[in-house]
Amino acid sequence: MAQIIDGAAIAAAIRTEIKEEVARLQAEHGVTPGLATVLIGDDPASATYVRNKRRACAEVGIASFGYELPAATSQDEVLRLLRELGSREDVHGILVQLPLPDHMNEAEVLAAVPLTKDVDGFNPINLGLLGVKGRQAPFAPCTPQGCIELLDRSGIRIAGRRAVVLGRSAIVGLPVALMLLARDATVTICHSKTPNIASVTRSADILIAAIGKPRFVTGDMVKPGVVVIDVGINRVADTNSPRGSRLVGDVDFDEVSEEAAAITPVPGGVGPMTIAMLLKNTLIAARRQVV
Amino acid sequence: MAQIIDGAAIAAAIRTEIKEEVARLQAEHGVTPGLATVLIGDDPASATYVRNKRRACAEVGIASFGYELPAATSQDEVLRLLRELGSREDVHGILVQLPLPDHMNEAEVLAAVPLTKDVDGFNPINLGLLGVKGRQAPFAPCTPQGCIELLDRSGIRIAGRRAVVLGRSAIVGLPVALMLLARDATVTICHSKTPNIASVTRSADILIAAIGKPRFVTGDMVKPGVVVIDVGINRVADTNSPRGSRLVGDVDFDEVSEEAAAITPVPGGVGPMTIAMLLKNTLIAARRQVV
Repeated sequence: MAQIIDGAAIAAAIRTEIKEEVARLQAEHGVTPGLATVLIGDDPASATYVRNKRRACAEVGIASFGYELPAATSQDEVLRLLRELGSREDVHGILVQLPLPDHMNEAEVLAAVPLTKDVDGFNPINLGLLGVKGRQAPFAPCTPQGCIELLDRSGIRIAGRRAVVLGRSAIVGLPVALMLLARDATVTICHSKTPNIASVTRSADILIAAIGKPRFVTGDMVKPGVVVIDVGINRVADTNSPRGSRLVGDVDFDEVSEEAAAITPVPGGVGPMTIAMLLKNTLIAARRQVV
Repeated sequence: MAQIIDGAAIAAAIRTEIKEEVARLQAEHGVTPGLATVLIGDDPASATYVRNKRRACAEVGIASFGYELPAATSQDEVLRLLRELGSREDVHGILVQLPLPDHMNEAEVLAAVPLTKDVDGFNPINLGLLGVKGRQAPFAPCTPQGCIELLDRSGIRIAGRRAVVLGRSAIVGLPVALMLLARDATVTICHSKTPNIASVTRSADILIAAIGKPRFVTGDMVKPGVVVIDVGINRVADTNSPRGSRLVGDVDFDEVSEEAAAITPVPGGVGPMTIAMLLKNTLIAARRQVV
């Protein structure tokens, strides 16, 4: 039976460390790290995400500044706000909650977040630098960074291992592949156009699943001893649940945990790490702008 | 026996196409595409590369403007020159010949080339966007683009194939991997820290060798029917040659051509494509800035 990688516990430990570091930054430099959140439109899921992020900030002593703009806001107005936030000394990190309304150009909006405050790591420059040994990306995007941190804090070696990443999104699959590569893994990226995908996943020492298909990875698709990080969060029907549904990952946990050496659960695996990494990036941004 | 992918012939065909397109742009818009080359210091190899690039420009009707600065030039002066070139209307592309003198920060210098004129594709933003489906990188770097073009013009399908890239440099390995991924290949990136590398290369339908080790890929490291693109250019001793040495690739051509369905020779494979892609990018840059 696999070691369960407890993302909730690891994220809690990280938040405790960040809280101490925030207090130290205040004591030594009189500076409180600040995160500006920009929410455009009235998508309820996005509103919940932003609320959770701001609550997490409050818990570790990071100031947060919430901006909520109507869906009809012009892109120019958003760019103007981002410029203003970019020049504010009390704002060390800026988070633009995605997705944006259809009439906006995501790349143009994200490019208006100054690199020094891009704590979400979504500026394409960050992505470009992730895989390049020796060049430091200003900020690693939060979910991929959370995956790496789970491996590191579970004592799992990355260098020299075969890593297989399922999924090639700019948010998770691609950056986590580049980060594993920079850490000296041999990395394969699979996607919806990969034929005979099981033959690839069975070569993995470390398997990162980020394709958004519930329980896609079954027990016969992995080799014994694999380490599995499950980034998927999918809601499926469940008549045993009072809500009638429950959350599952991209991995069939029951089957794969029989084969794996270590595996993250869903929920309670990668999920809690994303916000912890956002707090960490905001702390780092504040330190760099102050010290 | 493998099909030999004749890079010299393919590059010549591309140069002919570009020459026609340059003439059309002049006839229809009165504009001559212009490339500024910036050479800093007195490395003889770099001087030769720049000379060859400018000669290739002249052959297809692209104007080139050569800037040669002493090695002791300050970075600020280089940045000032790049700003000036960035604002000039007759300069559509800017090439900064690498490597730079040690006292310069390569990332900072390359970032001063405006994206619209970055015909070498070395701005990190370009790298970041290469692997992202649906987002267009302004310019693909020349050597990786040359590899893809060789496959395309030889009628070799990329989508759905297993591609293995040997090497992870920011100049070749990483961008070609991202470009293959965006073209729906399943991509594995190997490097000096990959154990049992032959077991990985033998899974390749398409193998790109870019590690700078002479004849590293031997016949037993590939499967029959593989397509091999050899980016390596290595000088090795050769007592049969009047010069006492000759150029070989990263692939043992004699052995691997017995197994491969198609293979590029060295010299005469990828080499001629790099300059052809620089001309193509300069033409594209001029078109975008004019039309």
